[in-house]
Amino acid sequence: MENGITILGSTGSIGRQTLEVAESLGLKVRALSANNSTGLLEEQIRKYKPVLVAVYDERAALDLSKRVSDTGVRVVGGPEGQNEAAGHSGADIIVTAIAGMAGLGPTLAAIRTGKRLALANKEPLVCAGEEVVRTARECGTEIIPVDSEHSAIFQCLAEVRLQKDEARLQNLSAPHPATAPPQIKKIILTASGGPFREMSRAELGKVTPEQALLHPNWKMGKKVTIDSATLMNKGLELIEAMHLFGVAPQQVEVVIHPESIIHSMVEFTDGSTIAQLSNPDMRLPIQYALTYPERRPSPVKPLDLLQIKQLTFEKPDLDAFPCLRLAYIAAEQGSEACAALNRANEEAVARFLNKEISFYGISDIIQEALKSIKG
Amino acid sequence: MENGITILGSTGSIGRQTLEVAESLGLKVRALSANNSTGLLEEQIRKYKPVLVAVYDERAALDLSKRVSDTGVRVVGGPEGQNEAAGHSGADIIVTAIAGMAGLGPTLAAIRTGKRLALANKEPLVCAGEEVVRTARECGTEIIPVDSEHSAIFQCLAEVRLQKDEARLQNLSAPHPATAPPQIKKIILTASGGPFREMSRAELGKVTPEQALLHPNWKMGKKVTIDSATLMNKGLELIEAMHLFGVAPQQVEVVIHPESIIHSMVEFTDGSTIAQLSNPDMRLPIQYALTYPERRPSPVKPLDLLQIKQLTFEKPDLDAFPCLRLAYIAAEQGSEACAALNRANEEAVARFLNKEISFYGISDIIQEALKSIKG
Repeated sequence: MENGITILGSTGSIGRQTLEVAESLGLKVRALSANNSTGLLEEQIRKYKPVLVAVYDERAALDLSKRVSDTGVRVVGGPEGQNEAAGHSGADIIVTAIAGMAGLGPTLAAIRTGKRLALANKEPLVCAGEEVVRTARECGTEIIPVDSEHSAIFQCLAEVRLQKDEARLQNLSAPHPATAPPQIKKIILTASGGPFREMSRAELGKVTPEQALLHPNWKMGKKVTIDSATLMNKGLELIEAMHLFGVAPQQVEVVIHPESIIHSMVEFTDGSTIAQLSNPDMRLPIQYALTYPERRPSPVKPLDLLQIKQLTFEKPDLDAFPCLRLAYIAAEQGSEACAALNRANEEAVARFLNKEISFYGISDIIQEALKSIKG
Repeated sequence: MENGITILGSTGSIGRQTLEVAESLGLKVRALSANNSTGLLEEQIRKYKPVLVAVYDERAALDLSKRVSDTGVRVVGGPEGQNEAAGHSGADIIVTAIAGMAGLGPTLAAIRTGKRLALANKEPLVCAGEEVVRTARECGTEIIPVDSEHSAIFQCLAEVRLQKDEARLQNLSAPHPATAPPQIKKIILTASGGPFREMSRAELGKVTPEQALLHPNWKMGKKVTIDSATLMNKGLELIEAMHLFGVAPQQVEVVIHPESIIHSMVEFTDGSTIAQLSNPDMRLPIQYALTYPERRPSPVKPLDLLQIKQLTFEKPDLDAFPCLRLAYIAAEQGSEACAALNRANEEAVARFLNKEISFYGISDIIQEALKSIKG
């Protein structure tokens, strides 16, 4: 039997790349979902022939349903439609590449199937990480992160799963431990540093959205690019890592690594550190989440360290980039603070892109939001 | 019951460090062996209270036997004594830290016990790698390398053992595959580059043993230090890696990495590379071989990449360092050539240390030796 895949958020960047990878692996596409991009979704339906497609926007769903009536695909709308796609019984792997908190319901629905979840949707972990991980634990669902940093950490932790397999031989293991295995000392989350890595606080006060949108190493959307410029991306990833791997916030260290070759590392209690390296290419963590525990050939350009010549490391400047400091504070405070941090950041980034506030206006707004949680 | 350890070659640098690590882990020392250093061996007997001690030199064995008659330890001599120590039934782990080909018999004796073998003796793998690995496969013996590079590779391959554990759940696995798992693309063996890394061929022709013995990153004996200066250490390690991990010689790439922080890497078929990093300290791979698959706290100084700042990589110059090129040739030719390479290198290094030949006299002698195999 062919293995089946469901992709939620199939019209976004990660969704499109996941379809490309799934096709190269010979996976059969069972269900797709999108917010409202019915043009691209129609192309995907005609090419990949899913059984079920969910469009969040009800009117767009109705419209698409008519346009693809010749294909036999069933089109469903609204949030219930997203959940239905997430729970479709034909898939062995569900990829959640939805953007934002709209992904929480479908993510939980996917987890409850007990199938493998390849998780590319940050917000459910950032804002409801405890619920997501607890549900996965209860349902025995394997969550494999698709984000390059968390995929790197997951890859570096193979030996921990080896021990869990030893435990499984004795029927003792749980797929998602509430606390980190004792041999993990810390996680080193690498950051490119963003476009403003070398700027002073005074210079940063004057940067424009246009300057921020010139990001060096990865192709990504505007919100994520600003998060990379403020280092809030690492703040959100720190919160995700905390939930995915059961570590305390202070066990996650952020290190600036401008070459973006080492995607993250794990330091163990004996003093040994395991790192994952590759050229930056999202198809790699996507494919790994689909083929794990196996590896398959991929079109990712092989790493040539002789050409790269050097890998460098710097301490992040938490005064110049206060968003990262605020994320540590929220992570220590708990779920409510993390959700508030994420919400305030989304609003602030939108206002920065709209030129309503300055670069440091972003962190000011987040700081205020965290204060209101404290009080 | 306390876990027991046997250390063959307990008076050498690795042997002494293994005793230190074993003590910190609370392992009970069952048997020890040495060539003829009875002074240190007597101290070790009084401190660690082994049941059996083997001294290769028969006269030294007899002498030691009298000196420690009050302790109740049994002292045996000759090569049979080494084998008896290797096969002692009280140990759960046998560490072979004997120098040279004298270690082959005891290594095979240790493998035949079916207990874990922590292998720190290079020559049996270099000169009789096929026999060593085949015997381990037949006896179901786990070989864990102690050499820092091979320990690094072993650590990077945890995910491969995870898949073998999946197989073990179905009773299909073999501990030492004859060929590498298909997901391994290549092994990247890192080299400090030795003291002469930046010298031209003309300059290298004139270097003295004194210059060679100033090695930057690791404390080691004279023979190993010259091997590091000629890059023959990497040549021997390439042959070892070929046997330990079932790869072809051309799947092992040597990269100069002067900081000696990344101890080796594995590139997988999907384009992902896993690396192991630490401060250079042999107690780390020794301890790992003893605690695997677990990790325990160790006195090894934690890695601080912010202090190290950069990791650099260079291509080795095979014209300036022909020994490495010769090792690739021998590895392709097979066991007999590898044994000849090792023998010729031992002789040539001794003559270089004795100032009978120049730096390039070493590679000239090895080249001649390989020619005689070919013809």
